[in-house]
Amino acid sequence: MAEWIARIGDEAVIDDPTELQRRSRATFGTYSRLLGIIRPAGVEQVRACLDIARRYSVPVYPCSTGKNWGYGSMALPGDGVALLLDRMNRIRAYDDELGTVTVEPGVTQRQLHDYLAQQGGRYWQDVTGSSADCSVLGNTVERGFGHTPYADHFANVCGLEVITATGRVVRTGFQRFHNAQAAHAYKWGVGPYLDGLFSQSGLGVVTAITLWLMPRPEAFQYFQVSVRDDADLEPLIDTLRELRMEGSVQSAVHIANRFKVFSAMEPYPWEALNGETPLPETYVEQRLRQLRLGAWSFSGALYGTRQGVALARKRIRRQLRGRVHIQQMRFMNPSRLALLDRFKTPLSRLTGLPLERMLGFMQVLFGIKQGVPTNRMLASVYWRKRTPPPADPDPDRDGCGLFWCAPVAPLKGADARAMVTIANTVFARHGFEPMLSMTVISERALDNVIALHYDRDIPGEDERAFACYEELLNRMMDAGYYPYRLGIQSMEALRERSSSEWNHTLADIRQALDPDGILAPGRYPA
Amino acid sequence: MAEWIARIGDEAVIDDPTELQRRSRATFGTYSRLLGIIRPAGVEQVRACLDIARRYSVPVYPCSTGKNWGYGSMALPGDGVALLLDRMNRIRAYDDELGTVTVEPGVTQRQLHDYLAQQGGRYWQDVTGSSADCSVLGNTVERGFGHTPYADHFANVCGLEVITATGRVVRTGFQRFHNAQAAHAYKWGVGPYLDGLFSQSGLGVVTAITLWLMPRPEAFQYFQVSVRDDADLEPLIDTLRELRMEGSVQSAVHIANRFKVFSAMEPYPWEALNGETPLPETYVEQRLRQLRLGAWSFSGALYGTRQGVALARKRIRRQLRGRVHIQQMRFMNPSRLALLDRFKTPLSRLTGLPLERMLGFMQVLFGIKQGVPTNRMLASVYWRKRTPPPADPDPDRDGCGLFWCAPVAPLKGADARAMVTIANTVFARHGFEPMLSMTVISERALDNVIALHYDRDIPGEDERAFACYEELLNRMMDAGYYPYRLGIQSMEALRERSSSEWNHTLADIRQALDPDGILAPGRYPA
Repeated sequence: MAEWIARIGDEAVIDDPTELQRRSRATFGTYSRLLGIIRPAGVEQVRACLDIARRYSVPVYPCSTGKNWGYGSMALPGDGVALLLDRMNRIRAYDDELGTVTVEPGVTQRQLHDYLAQQGGRYWQDVTGSSADCSVLGNTVERGFGHTPYADHFANVCGLEVITATGRVVRTGFQRFHNAQAAHAYKWGVGPYLDGLFSQSGLGVVTAITLWLMPRPEAFQYFQVSVRDDADLEPLIDTLRELRMEGSVQSAVHIANRFKVFSAMEPYPWEALNGETPLPETYVEQRLRQLRLGAWSFSGALYGTRQGVALARKRIRRQLRGRVHIQQMRFMNPSRLALLDRFKTPLSRLTGLPLERMLGFMQVLFGIKQGVPTNRMLASVYWRKRTPPPADPDPDRDGCGLFWCAPVAPLKGADARAMVTIANTVFARHGFEPMLSMTVISERALDNVIALHYDRDIPGEDERAFACYEELLNRMMDAGYYPYRLGIQSMEALRERSSSEWNHTLADIRQALDPDGILAPGRYPA
Repeated sequence: MAEWIARIGDEAVIDDPTELQRRSRATFGTYSRLLGIIRPAGVEQVRACLDIARRYSVPVYPCSTGKNWGYGSMALPGDGVALLLDRMNRIRAYDDELGTVTVEPGVTQRQLHDYLAQQGGRYWQDVTGSSADCSVLGNTVERGFGHTPYADHFANVCGLEVITATGRVVRTGFQRFHNAQAAHAYKWGVGPYLDGLFSQSGLGVVTAITLWLMPRPEAFQYFQVSVRDDADLEPLIDTLRELRMEGSVQSAVHIANRFKVFSAMEPYPWEALNGETPLPETYVEQRLRQLRLGAWSFSGALYGTRQGVALARKRIRRQLRGRVHIQQMRFMNPSRLALLDRFKTPLSRLTGLPLERMLGFMQVLFGIKQGVPTNRMLASVYWRKRTPPPADPDPDRDGCGLFWCAPVAPLKGADARAMVTIANTVFARHGFEPMLSMTVISERALDNVIALHYDRDIPGEDERAFACYEELLNRMMDAGYYPYRLGIQSMEALRERSSSEWNHTLADIRQALDPDGILAPGRYPA
């Protein structure tokens, strides 16, 4: 600690035990020790910090901003020191013609959004539904995803700056060459493509990424659709695959089950249920019927020329109508949304629907699909809390329990059904509500992001929730649905299911790049 | 050799000096020694071959089918044995719902095309303009590209089977897990993404890849456009960028200069020029004026629903008309092409144009853009030969001289111009025709594939052509335009221009995966 303080300054090193305890709280029980937090301010300080870690054989774990909620927040998968990169928050480069931007780990979704707006708003970032204060780089190297045609974040990376455990500063792709004109335009470079090594790994400290941005389209249209019956799921998934394959839908589509929709719209009905948990399916069903919502609801958006968007809308309507029971289908452009907003009060009275709340939620989703980050989605993390979310939500501080489990399936109706059945069965056995958000992330894959919400302040809940989560993950993997991403609590879960050849290969690479084993041991290990 | 023969059979090992000499001929002068060719028939035989190579410290170089024309054919970048994988030619898996296929190295473009047709033709592969007998896998791991929305071949890989130098069989992505349902649907898997390591590298023997295929669209439309003036290049490139960015064009667009168009349409006019070389610009200009073609010609295609394609066509027409001087613009669907074919003879007479030849070439491009492989494009490799291409073209055998040089630029008019100026200057100095094919390979990158054609049977031409090629590559790199891919003659060219940190990192990884240094030393080295 003294050496780190000497090198990067007193204010950049946190070793106060109370503060460390506070900072290592996650949204579930964690068991490793956070020995310190060091916050280097640039590449040279990162190298110096690593050099000290190497000399003392202290494990260091790179974190961008530490908001990896539901996957471990800033808690570590093993005892060690957090290398917190939030002070490296420069936007290093921006190309207005090509729509590219280079960001450091501390750059947040909000910061990038504001920056792009200042540049004239010609490009949109693809945001996640997590906090506006999350790191763009952190989510990207964890291979997170969002909503627009640029939803697959890692696919839109064009070169990294990485510092290896031994202090080498490696720039990938064409960035390894002096004056390479296409450094931000062409991601493969020449020779082996190394970028993938530094995603979901502890093989290096990523200190900058170049991202491709989505050009703001001439026309934009949000849509949300609800289908009537649970049995509509299979044809819905198959129809969405066909719509993506033919190009009518070019962005991600997010499909929510009843519990997920309910928790996004309303708080837990503690009073109506006299404190009973879990939320009965019948209650949700009845309430959603009042809101005229069916068994599955999904949202997405269309991006393109005015005529292209109009055409796609017509096509989507027609294809869906022939295949599923539509309960509700709304397409919404900015002017229509503004109109609705203007007349929401009389319309609420007329229809008897809680239009203000429904509209408020729609406005948030509408924004997300245009790359506008929000903190609004964090409200659902307070689902099982007795008090409403505060103005400055902080799930770690407020004892919000949350596990994410995110298995991936082929984009086929039968696979979606198999995952839903497993989730429903496991959650029912453990007394939690299965909140499913299935994302069509490409022409071929469906990512089922399952949230397990609970209240950490209830004694024993951490253990009960973990048991549920663990059974869920294992049963998904037993059925062949492996997760796209892992929380710190599950880093070991894959090792024995993985081929030993792959494990040995990764272990050899790790040994070559980090011979002292100081960088993020236990993070996506082999 | 004896051990290899004992292990994989006499007929699978080539050590006859004459045969080896024949097989190591490329389309330019090569200087390394091909010591033998071993042709293992499957994964276990590959492992056994590597084991023997390790014991005797013999370098082995994996080749798929050895048709890497213009980049070295089957010649090696160093003395060693070719590990020729053409006998591994199974199509291992196909998914008709997701459009995925798993192929071994020996599977050719023709074989995959015929296979997909037999399955009902629901999906198209993306082909290159090289021979129908080229390896699909070989081109893909070299990160080649084609024509359709799936033009970026490596971007559409979903998992590899790789054998390391030490004999480990590594399956990447979700394929490392037992029974992973999304193994062919989601490419990143979980944990570090390793696929990139095995593209353009000697880090492993790739024995299978899973590819995503393009769904056959409801509607298809080919287009070819010619713009009048050389100065139209800059606005053309910028307009194409805008069209791709907004999604009106979703596939690759190939832009040819006059020499490139001419060589595709007609043989070298030996008689008219009394044997003079290089082809005078004035000659080409005059001839192309007769064909009503301008300074730059490009082709592409539209894929989608009937209405979507009609809309995109209108948009492209309008945007181009306002920005460049259109000499000729044709959109062509299958029925219109058939009609034209029917009336080509009377039309030729009426117009005085060599319509049969022009139509023949259009039919080839039309097919390529639908994933139909062809040998027709090989004709241009015989450009400087005195005799027309034979029925069974083989550039290596026939002494066709060819170097490819393929620098990448940002997709901006000014960068395209800078590359063109360099190419024209260098070729003029050396007395060859600059044949440029610039491909819009994405929303942001332009790949300038420059062909240098010559006749290897003329004494001294190998050296003259190499001098031209080398100056071209160096001047492109001096200006910041680095190649997307390398021939065996240039593998060392990048080392000193690359950052030493990157070089050291790759060297460490190579050492970890191939401690004996037997696998493809000198291929994309660090």
